[in-house]
Amino acid sequence: MDWKPYKRTALYYETDQMGVIHHSNYIRWFEEARIDRINQMGLTYERIETMGIFIPVLEVSCSYKKSVFYNETVEIASNIIEFTGLKFTMEYDIYNRETKEQKAKGISKHCFVDRNWMPIRLKKQFPEIYKLFNESIKID
Amino acid sequence: MDWKPYKRTALYYETDQMGVIHHSNYIRWFEEARIDRINQMGLTYERIETMGIFIPVLEVSCSYKKSVFYNETVEIASNIIEFTGLKFTMEYDIYNRETKEQKAKGISKHCFVDRNWMPIRLKKQFPEIYKLFNESIKID
Amino acid sequence: MDWKPYKRTALYYETDQMGVIHHSNYIRWFEEARIDRINQMGLTYERIETMGIFIPVLEVSCSYKKSVFYNETVEIASNIIEFTGLKFTMEYDIYNRETKEQKAKGISKHCFVDRNWMPIRLKKQFPEIYKLFNESIKID
Amino acid sequence: MDWKPYKRTALYYETDQMGVIHHSNYIRWFEEARIDRINQMGLTYERIETMGIFIPVLEVSCSYKKSVFYNETVEIASNIIEFTGLKFTMEYDIYNRETKEQKAKGISKHCFVDRNWMPIRLKKQFPEIYKLFNESIKID
Repeated sequence: MDWKPYKRTALYYETDQMGVIHHSNYIRWFEEARIDRINQMGLTYERIETMGIFIPVLEVSCSYKKSVFYNETVEIASNIIEFTGLKFTMEYDIYNRETKEQKAKGISKHCFVDRNWMPIRLKKQFPEIYKLFNESIKID
Repeated sequence: MDWKPYKRTALYYETDQMGVIHHSNYIRWFEEARIDRINQMGLTYERIETMGIFIPVLEVSCSYKKSVFYNETVEIASNIIEFTGLKFTMEYDIYNRETKEQKAKGISKHCFVDRNWMPIRLKKQFPEIYKLFNESIKID
Repeated sequence: MDWKPYKRTALYYETDQMGVIHHSNYIRWFEEARIDRINQMGLTYERIETMGIFIPVLEVSCSYKKSVFYNETVEIASNIIEFTGLKFTMEYDIYNRETKEQKAKGISKHCFVDRNWMPIRLKKQFPEIYKLFNESIKID
Repeated sequence: MDWKPYKRTALYYETDQMGVIHHSNYIRWFEEARIDRINQMGLTYERIETMGIFIPVLEVSCSYKKSVFYNETVEIASNIIEFTGLKFTMEYDIYNRETKEQKAKGISKHCFVDRNWMPIRLKKQFPEIYKLFNESIKID
Protein backbone atom coordinates (compact mmCIF):
# COMPACT_ATOMS: atom_id res chain seq x y z
CA MET A 1 0.00 0.00 0.00
CA ASP A 2 1.01 3.54 -0.68
CA TRP A 3 0.93 5.70 2.41
CA LYS A 4 0.58 9.43 2.03
CA PRO A 5 2.99 11.50 4.12
CA TYR A 6 1.38 13.85 6.63
CA LYS A 7 1.59 17.52 5.65
CA ARG A 8 2.11 20.21 8.27
CA THR A 9 2.86 23.93 8.19
CA ALA A 10 4.82 25.28 11.17
CA LEU A 11 2.79 27.73 13.25
CA TYR A 12 3.85 31.04 14.75
CA TYR A 13 3.28 30.00 18.35
CA GLU A 14 5.51 26.96 17.76
CA THR A 15 8.58 29.21 17.32
CA ASP A 16 10.89 30.15 20.17
CA GLN A 17 13.30 33.03 20.71
CA MET A 18 16.03 31.26 18.75
CA GLY A 19 13.77 32.02 15.76
CA VAL A 20 13.05 28.37 14.95
CA ILE A 21 10.37 25.82 15.78
CA HIS A 22 10.88 24.63 19.35
CA HIS A 23 12.14 21.04 19.39
CA SER A 24 9.32 19.78 21.63
CA ASN A 25 6.81 20.39 18.83
CA TYR A 26 8.39 17.68 16.67
CA ILE A 27 7.18 15.13 19.24
CA ARG A 28 3.67 16.54 18.82
CA TRP A 29 4.01 16.39 15.03
CA PHE A 30 5.01 12.73 15.34
CA GLU A 31 1.71 12.17 17.13
CA GLU A 32 -0.22 14.00 14.41
CA ALA A 33 1.52 11.91 11.73
CA ARG A 34 0.92 8.68 13.69
CA ILE A 35 -2.80 9.33 14.06
CA ASP A 36 -3.04 10.33 10.39
CA ARG A 37 -1.32 7.10 9.48
CA ILE A 38 -3.68 5.01 11.61
CA ASN A 39 -6.57 6.81 9.92
CA GLN A 40 -5.11 5.87 6.52
CA MET A 41 -5.13 2.23 7.67
CA GLY A 42 -8.92 2.48 7.72
CA LEU A 43 -9.25 3.02 11.45
CA THR A 44 -9.83 6.25 13.26
CA TYR A 45 -8.21 7.11 16.50
CA GLU A 46 -11.58 8.20 17.90
CA ARG A 47 -13.17 4.87 17.08
CA ILE A 48 -10.22 3.08 18.65
CA GLU A 49 -10.71 5.04 21.88
CA THR A 50 -14.47 4.43 21.72
CA MET A 51 -13.76 0.68 21.51
CA GLY A 52 -11.82 1.08 24.75
CA ILE A 53 -8.34 0.84 23.26
CA PHE A 54 -5.75 3.41 24.29
CA ILE A 55 -2.28 3.66 22.77
CA PRO A 56 0.15 5.21 25.27
CA VAL A 57 3.70 6.11 24.35
CA LEU A 58 6.40 3.88 25.81
CA GLU A 59 9.34 5.60 24.22
CA VAL A 60 10.06 8.43 21.86
CA SER A 61 13.25 9.71 20.28
CA CYS A 62 14.07 12.38 17.76
CA SER A 63 17.25 13.33 15.97
CA TYR A 64 17.29 16.95 14.78
CA LYS A 65 19.11 17.63 11.50
CA LYS A 66 18.03 21.09 10.34
CA SER A 67 15.83 23.79 11.87
CA VAL A 68 12.25 24.20 10.74
CA PHE A 69 11.16 27.81 10.40
CA TYR A 70 7.86 29.52 10.90
CA ASN A 71 5.44 28.94 7.99
CA GLU A 72 7.65 26.26 6.46
CA THR A 73 5.69 23.28 5.19
CA VAL A 74 7.07 19.87 6.01
CA GLU A 75 5.97 16.37 5.23
CA ILE A 76 6.22 13.57 7.74
CA ALA A 77 6.58 10.06 6.34
CA SER A 78 5.80 7.35 8.87
CA ASN A 79 6.15 3.60 8.91
CA ILE A 80 5.30 0.80 11.29
CA ILE A 81 8.63 -1.00 11.58
CA GLU A 82 7.66 -3.46 14.30
CA PHE A 83 4.37 -4.95 15.50
CA THR A 84 3.83 -7.83 17.89
CA GLY A 85 0.12 -7.59 18.67
CA LEU A 86 1.09 -6.16 22.05
CA LYS A 87 3.36 -3.34 20.95
CA PHE A 88 4.43 -1.47 17.86
CA THR A 89 7.19 0.86 16.75
CA MET A 90 6.71 3.67 14.30
CA GLU A 91 9.47 5.58 12.53
CA TYR A 92 9.17 9.15 11.26
CA ASP A 93 11.01 11.22 8.72
CA ILE A 94 10.40 14.96 8.62
CA TYR A 95 11.53 16.84 5.51
CA ASN A 96 10.79 20.09 3.69
CA ARG A 97 7.88 19.57 1.36
CA GLU A 98 9.49 21.20 -1.65
CA THR A 99 13.22 20.67 -1.32
CA LYS A 100 12.84 17.26 0.40
CA GLU A 101 15.71 18.34 2.70
CA GLN A 102 15.61 16.19 5.83
CA LYS A 103 14.76 18.06 9.02
CA ALA A 104 14.52 15.31 11.60
CA LYS A 105 13.88 11.65 12.07
CA GLY A 106 12.70 9.64 15.01
CA ILE A 107 10.75 6.72 16.38
CA SER A 108 8.05 6.06 18.93
CA LYS A 109 7.09 2.83 20.69
CA HIS A 110 3.59 2.05 21.92
CA CYS A 111 1.47 -0.57 23.58
CA PHE A 112 -2.29 -1.09 23.65
CA VAL A 113 -4.17 -0.75 26.95
CA ASP A 114 -7.77 -0.70 28.08
CA ARG A 115 -9.52 1.95 30.18
CA ASN A 116 -7.85 0.56 33.28
CA TRP A 117 -4.43 0.67 31.65
CA MET A 118 -4.30 -3.13 31.45
CA PRO A 119 -2.44 -4.49 28.40
CA ILE A 120 -4.55 -5.61 25.45
CA ARG A 121 -3.61 -8.54 23.18
CA LEU A 122 -4.96 -7.33 19.85
CA LYS A 123 -4.83 -10.74 18.14
CA LYS A 124 -7.22 -12.26 20.64
CA GLN A 125 -9.32 -9.30 21.68
CA PHE A 126 -9.50 -7.22 18.49
CA PRO A 127 -8.53 -9.49 15.57
CA GLU A 128 -9.64 -7.04 12.85
CA ILE A 129 -7.42 -4.33 14.29
CA TYR A 130 -4.60 -6.85 14.65
CA LYS A 131 -5.01 -7.63 10.95
CA LEU A 132 -4.89 -3.97 9.91
CA PHE A 133 -1.71 -3.30 11.88
CA ASN A 134 -0.15 -6.52 10.69
CA GLU A 135 -0.78 -5.71 7.04
CA SER A 136 0.69 -2.25 7.51
CA ILE A 137 4.15 -3.29 8.64
CA LYS A 138 6.84 -1.87 6.40
CA ILE A 139 8.51 -4.51 4.28
CA ASP A 140 12.00 -3.57 3.24
CA MET B 1 -8.14 36.93 54.31
CA ASP B 2 -4.79 37.59 52.78
CA TRP B 3 -4.31 35.86 49.46
CA LYS B 4 -0.83 35.15 48.26
CA PRO B 5 -0.16 36.03 44.63
CA TYR B 6 0.88 33.13 42.41
CA LYS B 7 4.55 33.20 41.44
CA ARG B 8 5.67 32.07 38.00
CA THR B 9 8.93 32.20 36.05
CA ALA B 10 8.60 32.40 32.25
CA LEU B 11 9.96 29.30 30.53
CA TYR B 12 12.11 29.07 27.41
CA TYR B 13 9.54 27.14 25.37
CA GLU B 14 6.98 29.84 26.15
CA THR B 15 8.92 32.38 24.07
CA ASP B 16 8.24 33.02 20.38
CA GLN B 17 10.36 34.45 17.59
CA MET B 18 9.49 38.02 18.61
CA GLY B 19 11.72 37.23 21.61
CA VAL B 20 8.94 37.51 24.18
CA ILE B 21 6.50 35.17 25.92
CA HIS B 22 3.76 34.23 23.47
CA HIS B 23 0.47 35.88 24.46
CA SER B 24 -1.46 32.58 24.61
CA ASN B 25 0.57 31.52 27.63
CA TYR B 26 -0.93 34.27 29.78
CA ILE B 27 -4.29 32.47 29.48
CA ARG B 28 -2.57 29.35 30.81
CA TRP B 29 -0.97 31.34 33.62
CA PHE B 30 -4.43 32.66 34.55
CA GLU B 31 -5.50 29.02 34.95
CA GLU B 32 -2.47 28.25 37.11
CA ALA B 33 -3.21 31.28 39.30
CA ARG B 34 -6.90 30.39 39.50
CA ILE B 35 -6.21 26.84 40.64
CA ASP B 36 -3.62 28.09 43.12
CA ARG B 37 -6.17 30.52 44.46
CA ILE B 38 -8.82 27.81 44.83
CA ASN B 39 -6.22 25.73 46.67
CA GLN B 40 -5.60 28.67 49.04
CA MET B 41 -9.34 28.70 49.77
CA GLY B 42 -8.86 25.31 51.40
CA LEU B 43 -10.07 23.29 48.43
CA THR B 44 -8.00 21.47 45.89
CA TYR B 45 -8.90 21.33 42.27
CA GLU B 46 -8.30 17.58 42.26
CA ARG B 47 -10.73 17.03 45.12
CA ILE B 48 -13.28 19.21 43.34
CA GLU B 49 -13.00 17.04 40.22
CA THR B 50 -13.17 13.89 42.35
CA MET B 51 -16.44 15.19 43.85
CA GLY B 52 -17.73 15.41 40.29
CA ILE B 53 -17.53 19.17 39.92
CA PHE B 54 -15.92 20.61 36.79
CA ILE B 55 -15.29 24.30 36.24
CA PRO B 56 -15.28 25.10 32.51
CA VAL B 57 -14.34 28.51 31.19
CA LEU B 58 -17.20 30.60 29.79
CA GLU B 59 -15.16 33.62 28.89
CA VAL B 60 -11.64 34.89 29.11
CA SER B 61 -10.03 38.20 28.28
CA CYS B 62 -6.57 39.64 28.67
CA SER B 63 -5.15 43.09 28.14
CA TYR B 64 -1.40 43.08 27.42
CA LYS B 65 0.58 46.04 28.78
CA LYS B 66 4.26 45.06 28.65
CA SER B 67 6.09 42.04 27.30
CA VAL B 68 7.25 39.31 29.63
CA PHE B 69 10.69 37.95 28.80
CA TYR B 70 12.23 34.54 29.19
CA ASN B 71 13.24 33.79 32.79
CA GLU B 72 11.42 36.84 34.12
CA THR B 73 9.54 36.12 37.33
CA VAL B 74 6.03 37.50 37.57
CA GLU B 75 3.40 37.42 40.24
CA ILE B 76 -0.26 36.97 39.45
CA ALA B 77 -2.73 38.44 41.91
CA SER B 78 -6.23 37.04 41.53
CA ASN B 79 -9.60 37.91 43.01
CA ILE B 80 -13.11 36.55 42.83
CA ILE B 81 -15.09 39.62 41.85
CA GLU B 82 -18.44 37.93 41.30
CA PHE B 83 -20.05 34.73 42.57
CA THR B 84 -23.66 33.63 42.25
CA GLY B 85 -23.52 29.97 43.26
CA LEU B 86 -23.89 29.10 39.59
CA LYS B 87 -21.08 31.18 38.15
CA PHE B 88 -18.08 33.20 39.19
CA THR B 89 -15.73 35.76 37.71
CA MET B 90 -12.07 36.00 38.58
CA GLU B 91 -9.78 38.92 37.80
CA TYR B 92 -6.03 38.67 37.34
CA ASP B 93 -3.16 41.11 37.52
CA ILE B 94 0.25 40.03 36.23
CA TYR B 95 3.25 42.12 37.25
CA ASN B 96 7.01 41.78 37.54
CA ARG B 97 7.85 40.32 40.90
CA GLU B 98 10.57 42.84 41.74
CA THR B 99 9.66 46.06 40.00
CA LYS B 100 5.89 45.49 40.35
CA GLU B 101 5.53 46.84 36.80
CA GLN B 102 2.21 45.69 35.40
CA LYS B 103 2.45 43.25 32.50
CA ALA B 104 -1.15 42.29 31.86
CA LYS B 105 -4.57 42.10 33.43
CA GLY B 106 -7.61 40.07 32.61
CA ILE B 107 -10.66 38.18 33.76
CA SER B 108 -12.22 34.77 33.35
CA LYS B 109 -15.81 33.63 33.87
CA HIS B 110 -16.78 30.12 34.90
CA CYS B 111 -19.70 27.92 35.76
CA PHE B 112 -19.90 24.63 37.68
CA VAL B 113 -20.97 21.46 35.88
CA ASP B 114 -21.17 17.76 36.67
CA ARG B 115 -19.64 14.88 34.70
CA ASN B 116 -22.45 15.20 32.14
CA TRP B 117 -21.86 18.92 31.77
CA MET B 118 -25.15 19.71 33.53
CA PRO B 119 -25.08 22.92 35.61
CA ILE B 120 -24.53 22.55 39.35
CA ARG B 121 -26.13 24.81 41.97
CA LEU B 122 -23.43 24.92 44.61
CA LYS B 123 -25.66 26.32 47.37
CA LYS B 124 -27.96 23.32 47.23
CA GLN B 125 -25.68 20.55 46.10
CA PHE B 126 -22.35 21.49 47.70
CA PRO B 127 -23.08 24.01 50.49
CA GLU B 128 -19.57 23.84 52.01
CA ILE B 129 -18.01 24.75 48.67
CA TYR B 130 -20.61 27.47 48.21
CA LYS B 131 -19.56 28.87 51.57
CA LEU B 132 -15.87 28.86 50.70
CA PHE B 133 -16.44 30.69 47.42
CA ASN B 134 -18.84 33.11 49.03
CA GLU B 135 -16.39 34.04 51.77
CA SER B 136 -13.68 34.60 49.20
CA ILE B 137 -15.39 37.31 47.18
CA LYS B 138 -13.30 40.45 47.04
CA ILE B 139 -14.77 43.29 49.08
CA ASP B 140 -13.75 46.70 47.85
CA MET C 1 -14.05 40.41 -1.36
CA ASP C 2 -14.91 36.93 -0.26
CA TRP C 3 -12.76 35.69 2.58
CA LYS C 4 -12.36 32.01 3.10
CA PRO C 5 -12.76 30.83 6.69
CA TYR C 6 -9.73 29.09 8.20
CA LYS C 7 -10.17 25.34 8.58
CA ARG C 8 -8.70 23.51 11.57
CA THR C 9 -8.97 20.01 12.98
CA ALA C 10 -8.55 19.71 16.75
CA LEU C 11 -5.43 17.73 17.71
CA TYR C 12 -5.03 15.08 20.37
CA TYR C 13 -2.47 17.01 22.42
CA GLU C 14 -4.88 19.96 22.53
CA THR C 15 -7.33 17.98 24.68
CA ASP C 16 -7.30 18.08 28.48
CA GLN C 17 -8.57 15.68 31.13
CA MET C 18 -12.09 17.11 30.88
CA GLY C 19 -12.09 15.35 27.49
CA VAL C 20 -12.37 18.56 25.45
CA ILE C 21 -10.01 20.98 23.72
CA HIS C 22 -8.33 23.14 26.37
CA HIS C 23 -9.63 26.71 26.19
CA SER C 24 -6.16 28.26 25.77
CA ASN C 25 -5.86 26.67 22.33
CA TYR C 26 -8.68 28.83 20.96
CA ILE C 27 -6.41 31.84 21.44
CA ARG C 28 -3.78 30.05 19.35
CA TRP C 29 -6.38 29.19 16.72
CA PHE C 30 -7.33 32.88 16.56
CA GLU C 31 -3.69 33.59 15.70
CA GLU C 32 -3.68 30.91 13.01
CA ALA C 33 -6.89 32.35 11.52
CA ARG C 34 -5.52 35.91 11.72
CA ILE C 35 -2.32 35.02 9.89
CA ASP C 36 -4.29 33.05 7.29
CA ARG C 37 -6.52 36.06 6.81
CA ILE C 38 -3.55 38.41 6.37
CA ASN C 39 -2.16 35.95 3.82
CA GLN C 40 -5.48 36.08 1.96
CA MET C 41 -5.10 39.87 1.81
CA GLY C 42 -2.08 39.29 -0.42
CA LEU C 43 0.50 39.75 2.29
CA THR C 44 2.39 37.09 4.14
CA TYR C 45 3.19 37.31 7.76
CA GLU C 46 6.78 36.31 7.05
CA ARG C 47 7.23 39.12 4.54
CA ILE C 48 5.71 41.54 7.04
CA GLU C 49 8.26 40.49 9.67
CA THR C 50 11.06 40.67 7.07
CA MET C 51 10.00 44.27 6.33
CA GLY C 52 10.51 44.95 10.03
CA ILE C 53 6.85 45.11 11.00
CA PHE C 54 5.70 43.17 14.05
CA ILE C 55 2.08 42.87 15.13
CA PRO C 56 1.86 42.29 18.89
CA VAL C 57 -1.41 41.54 20.63
CA LEU C 58 -2.84 44.34 22.78
CA GLU C 59 -5.94 42.52 23.87
CA VAL C 60 -7.70 39.25 23.34
CA SER C 61 -11.03 37.90 24.47
CA CYS C 62 -12.97 34.75 23.82
CA SER C 63 -16.47 33.65 24.72
CA TYR C 64 -16.88 29.86 24.84
CA LYS C 65 -20.27 28.49 23.71
CA LYS C 66 -19.80 24.75 23.12
CA SER C 67 -16.89 22.38 23.65
CA VAL C 68 -14.72 21.35 20.72
CA PHE C 69 -13.74 17.69 20.77
CA TYR C 70 -10.67 15.85 19.57
CA ASN C 71 -10.62 15.40 15.77
CA GLU C 72 -13.55 17.77 15.28
CA THR C 73 -13.08 20.09 12.32
CA VAL C 74 -14.00 23.70 12.86
CA GLU C 75 -13.94 26.75 10.66
CA ILE C 76 -12.88 30.13 11.91
CA ALA C 77 -14.35 33.14 10.14
CA SER C 78 -12.45 36.35 10.81
CA ASN C 79 -13.04 39.99 10.03
CA ILE C 80 -11.19 43.24 10.50
CA ILE C 81 -13.78 45.35 12.27
CA GLU C 82 -11.58 48.35 13.03
CA PHE C 83 -8.42 49.77 11.49
CA THR C 84 -6.78 53.13 12.14
CA GLY C 85 -3.39 52.75 10.52
CA LEU C 86 -1.94 52.40 14.00
CA LYS C 87 -4.13 49.62 15.34
CA PHE C 88 -6.68 47.09 14.21
CA THR C 89 -9.30 44.83 15.74
CA MET C 90 -10.16 41.42 14.38
CA GLU C 91 -13.23 39.39 15.29
CA TYR C 92 -13.43 35.60 15.12
CA ASP C 93 -16.24 33.11 14.93
CA ILE C 94 -15.46 29.42 15.50
CA TYR C 95 -18.08 26.89 14.40
CA ASN C 96 -18.30 23.22 13.48
CA ARG C 97 -17.50 22.82 9.82
CA GLU C 98 -20.46 20.59 9.04
CA THR C 99 -23.23 21.53 11.43
CA LYS C 100 -22.22 25.23 11.55
CA GLU C 101 -22.93 25.10 15.31
CA GLN C 102 -21.14 27.99 16.97
CA LYS C 103 -18.33 26.98 19.32
CA ALA C 104 -16.82 30.31 20.34
CA LYS C 105 -16.39 33.88 19.30
CA GLY C 106 -13.85 36.49 20.19
CA ILE C 107 -11.76 39.47 19.23
CA SER C 108 -8.14 40.54 19.28
CA LYS C 109 -6.60 44.01 19.13
CA HIS C 110 -3.19 44.74 17.67
CA CYS C 111 -0.76 47.50 16.88
CA PHE C 112 2.17 47.66 14.48
CA VAL C 113 5.70 48.04 15.86
CA ASP C 114 9.24 47.96 14.48
CA ARG C 115 12.13 45.82 15.67
CA ASN C 116 12.60 48.15 18.63
CA TRP C 117 8.92 47.92 19.56
CA MET C 118 8.34 51.53 18.47
CA PRO C 119 4.88 52.18 16.98
CA ILE C 120 4.61 52.25 13.19
CA ARG C 121 2.22 54.52 11.28
CA LEU C 122 1.34 52.34 8.32
CA LYS C 123 -0.15 55.17 6.21
CA LYS C 124 3.13 57.06 6.18
CA GLN C 125 5.69 54.30 6.47
CA PHE C 126 4.08 51.42 4.56
CA PRO C 127 1.29 52.91 2.38
CA GLU C 128 0.73 49.71 0.36
CA ILE C 129 0.14 47.72 3.53
CA TYR C 130 -2.10 50.50 4.83
CA LYS C 131 -4.13 50.20 1.63
CA LEU C 132 -4.50 46.43 1.93
CA PHE C 133 -5.71 46.63 5.52
CA ASN C 134 -7.98 49.54 4.72
CA GLU C 135 -9.65 47.72 1.85
CA SER C 136 -10.19 44.69 4.04
CA ILE C 137 -12.30 46.31 6.72
CA LYS C 138 -15.64 44.61 7.11
CA ILE C 139 -18.52 46.70 5.84
CA ASP C 140 -21.83 45.84 7.44
CA MET D 1 29.24 18.97 43.85
CA ASP D 2 25.74 18.26 44.98
CA TRP D 3 23.16 19.08 42.35
CA LYS D 4 19.62 19.78 43.41
CA PRO D 5 16.96 18.00 41.38
CA TYR D 6 14.50 20.27 39.59
CA LYS D 7 11.04 20.31 41.15
CA ARG D 8 7.93 20.57 38.98
CA THR D 9 4.20 20.23 39.59
CA ALA D 10 2.14 18.98 36.63
CA LEU D 11 -0.28 21.60 35.34
CA TYR D 12 -3.90 21.20 34.29
CA TYR D 13 -3.35 22.24 30.69
CA GLU D 14 -0.60 19.62 30.41
CA THR D 15 -3.15 16.81 30.76
CA ASP D 16 -4.82 15.13 27.78
CA GLN D 17 -8.05 13.20 27.41
CA MET D 18 -6.41 9.98 28.59
CA GLY D 19 -6.38 11.76 31.98
CA VAL D 20 -2.60 11.93 32.25
CA ILE D 21 0.16 14.40 31.40
CA HIS D 22 0.71 14.38 27.64
CA HIS D 23 4.04 12.76 26.79
CA SER D 24 5.33 15.76 24.82
CA ASN D 25 5.49 17.79 28.03
CA TYR D 26 8.26 15.59 29.43
CA ILE D 27 10.52 16.92 26.67
CA ARG D 28 9.70 20.44 27.85
CA TRP D 29 10.37 19.44 31.46
CA PHE D 30 13.77 18.11 30.38
CA GLU D 31 14.49 21.59 29.04
CA GLU D 32 13.38 23.20 32.29
CA ALA D 33 15.59 20.81 34.27
CA ARG D 34 18.54 21.37 31.92
CA ILE D 35 18.35 25.15 32.23
CA ASP D 36 17.97 24.87 35.99
CA ARG D 37 21.03 22.66 36.07
CA ILE D 38 23.08 25.11 33.99
CA ASN D 39 21.99 27.85 36.38
CA GLN D 40 23.22 25.72 39.30
CA MET D 41 26.60 25.53 37.57
CA GLY D 42 26.90 29.28 38.12
CA LEU D 43 25.83 30.30 34.66
CA THR D 44 22.47 31.55 33.54
CA TYR D 45 20.91 30.61 30.28
CA GLU D 46 20.08 34.25 29.62
CA ARG D 47 23.69 35.32 30.09
CA ILE D 48 24.80 32.50 27.80
CA GLU D 49 22.46 33.76 25.08
CA THR D 50 23.60 37.33 25.69
CA MET D 51 27.20 36.19 25.15
CA GLY D 52 26.03 34.89 21.77
CA ILE D 53 26.02 31.21 22.66
CA PHE D 54 22.98 29.13 21.71
CA ILE D 55 22.49 25.51 22.69
CA PRO D 56 20.27 23.74 20.15
CA VAL D 57 19.06 20.19 20.68
CA LEU D 58 20.64 17.56 18.45
CA GLU D 59 18.79 14.62 19.85
CA VAL D 60 16.27 13.80 22.53
CA SER D 61 14.83 10.56 23.80
CA CYS D 62 12.49 9.61 26.59
CA SER D 63 11.39 6.31 28.01
CA TYR D 64 8.02 6.47 29.80
CA LYS D 65 7.59 4.19 32.82
CA LYS D 66 4.53 5.44 34.72
CA SER D 67 1.97 8.15 34.02
CA VAL D 68 2.24 11.51 35.73
CA PHE D 69 -1.09 12.92 36.85
CA TYR D 70 -2.39 16.44 37.17
CA ASN D 71 -1.03 18.23 40.25
CA GLU D 72 1.49 15.51 40.95
CA THR D 73 4.88 16.87 41.97
CA VAL D 74 7.90 15.28 40.37
CA GLU D 75 11.60 15.83 40.70
CA ILE D 76 13.93 15.69 37.73
CA ALA D 77 17.52 14.72 38.44
CA SER D 78 19.89 15.61 35.63
CA ASN D 79 23.52 14.87 34.88
CA ILE D 80 26.03 15.79 32.22
CA ILE D 81 27.27 12.39 31.13
CA GLU D 82 29.40 13.53 28.20
CA PHE D 83 31.12 16.80 27.27
CA THR D 84 33.64 17.42 24.52
CA GLY D 85 33.78 21.20 24.36
CA LEU D 86 31.75 20.99 21.18
CA LYS D 87 28.86 18.90 22.41
CA PHE D 88 27.35 17.53 25.57
CA THR D 89 24.85 14.89 26.62
CA MET D 90 22.55 15.25 29.58
CA GLU D 91 20.56 12.46 31.20
CA TYR D 92 17.31 12.93 33.11
CA ASP D 93 15.43 10.92 35.65
CA ILE D 94 11.84 11.93 36.49
CA TYR D 95 10.33 10.49 39.66
CA ASN D 96 7.53 11.27 42.10
CA ARG D 97 8.80 13.64 44.73
CA GLU D 98 7.44 11.73 47.68
CA THR D 99 7.37 8.09 46.71
CA LYS D 100 10.51 8.36 44.50
CA GLU D 101 8.72 6.08 42.02
CA GLN D 102 10.36 6.48 38.62
CA LYS D 103 8.15 8.05 35.98
CA ALA D 104 10.49 8.45 33.01
CA LYS D 105 14.10 8.74 32.03
CA GLY D 106 15.78 10.17 29.00
CA ILE D 107 18.70 12.00 27.47
CA SER D 108 19.32 15.01 25.28
CA LYS D 109 22.34 15.90 23.15
CA HIS D 110 23.40 19.43 22.36
CA CYS D 111 26.01 21.51 20.60
CA PHE D 112 27.03 25.15 21.01
CA VAL D 113 26.43 27.59 18.16
CA ASP D 114 26.74 31.33 17.61
CA ARG D 115 24.05 33.69 16.31
CA ASN D 116 24.70 32.43 12.78
CA TRP D 117 24.37 28.81 13.87
CA MET D 118 28.09 28.23 13.37
CA PRO D 119 29.63 25.72 15.83
CA ILE D 120 31.46 27.15 18.83
CA ARG D 121 34.54 25.53 20.40
CA LEU D 122 34.07 26.40 24.04
CA LYS D 123 37.65 25.60 25.10
CA LYS D 124 39.08 28.21 22.78
CA GLN D 125 36.33 30.78 22.58
CA PHE D 126 34.80 30.63 26.07
CA PRO D 127 37.32 28.90 28.36
CA GLU D 128 35.49 29.82 31.60
CA ILE D 129 32.32 28.19 30.33
CA TYR D 130 34.34 25.21 29.12
CA LYS D 131 35.70 24.88 32.64
CA LEU D 132 32.29 25.00 34.27
CA PHE D 133 30.89 22.31 31.99
CA ASN D 134 34.00 20.20 32.35
CA GLU D 135 33.86 20.29 36.14
CA SER D 136 30.21 19.31 36.05
CA ILE D 137 30.58 16.01 34.26
CA LYS D 138 29.15 13.16 36.27
CA ILE D 139 31.81 10.85 37.66
CA ASP D 140 30.54 7.36 38.29
